[in-house]
Amino acid sequence: MLEIDGIKSELKKILSERRYVHSLGVAEEAEKLARRYGADQSKAYLAGLVHDCAKEFPPEEMEGILKTEYGVPVDSMSRLMPKILHGPLGACEAQRKFEIYDPEILDAIKYHTTGKGNMSTLAKIIYIADYIEPNRDFEGVEKLRRLAYENIDEAIIAGIDETILDLIKRGLIIHPDTVHARNDLIIKRSQR
Amino acid sequence: MLEIDGIKSELKKILSERRYVHSLGVAEEAEKLARRYGADQSKAYLAGLVHDCAKEFPPEEMEGILKTEYGVPVDSMSRLMPKILHGPLGACEAQRKFEIYDPEILDAIKYHTTGKGNMSTLAKIIYIADYIEPNRDFEGVEKLRRLAYENIDEAIIAGIDETILDLIKRGLIIHPDTVHARNDLIIKRSQR
Repeated sequence: MLEIDGIKSELKKILSERRYVHSLGVAEEAEKLARRYGADQSKAYLAGLVHDCAKEFPPEEMEGILKTEYGVPVDSMSRLMPKILHGPLGACEAQRKFEIYDPEILDAIKYHTTGKGNMSTLAKIIYIADYIEPNRDFEGVEKLRRLAYENIDEAIIAGIDETILDLIKRGLIIHPDTVHARNDLIIKRSQR
Repeated sequence: MLEIDGIKSELKKILSERRYVHSLGVAEEAEKLARRYGADQSKAYLAGLVHDCAKEFPPEEMEGILKTEYGVPVDSMSRLMPKILHGPLGACEAQRKFEIYDPEILDAIKYHTTGKGNMSTLAKIIYIADYIEPNRDFEGVEKLRRLAYENIDEAIIAGIDETILDLIKRGLIIHPDTVHARNDLIIKRSQR
């Protein structure tokens, strides 16, 4: 793995200023959440830092790069929502550019936008840190921040609910992994 | 197949008065929609009439009946929402009780609550007739009725949107088939 400073200088080159600041925010939030939930803080910081490393690739090129450069197949749903491909593509780029090979970190990057069923603690941390990092500002963000430290599963359900409401409002498709993530957490809630 | 009158007397016995009246409403609405969309009117009437024939089985017994009496496996999601099992169970009961073997009718009964990807015209008709039949009364029902006759796909998207919003409000899981039905229609909309 590259040194954190090396990763930061590389990210500064490939991301807009705004996205770079967001990435630092997610890294710091993820580190705090890891402390709260007994996860590995340095892994959380690193995953947060690089989670959007492919976000500024042209969306229309993402599928081609995934297929030809990385041999990663793209499912038909993701093809129709090209922006979410920055998750899977980010996981590939993090390996090649930053020499990150930890499967838990790569998985957290891959699913940070859609979520998925049976998420690891690290994947949950990155998902919700991306939502609530200090630069985020939307109605209800303070409530979601509190919830993230009280009960991360409930915070993710609330985050997914907002995502689905937004997709419905905009008439867009809902990725099956997002529904799967939410269903999984609701089933586990009923078993608590 | 039994005669329509025979089916009606049997339904009167196994359904509450309210549900029987609803079933007649769905049958009549489905017949009208079939006329509008060039589908088979008598199949639509019949499917609408019997769609809820298993609705008043005790929900906790539905999975067992499906498995032991019909050899039908129940997926893990449906198991967690036992009420929706009245669709698959209704399709089985319609065969046994009413000797209905038309696969398109059975499929429309099976998926009338969840919807599914790639619905037939008949399945669409039953899904939306169930939503808008004359006895239904909820905010927005008139708008949905108009839409059903203007563009049935848009009416189903709107119906599913309402269903998902309601499930989110109540903190319940969302069946993957429902999301698949909606995604499928939105993809087809973008190709129109």
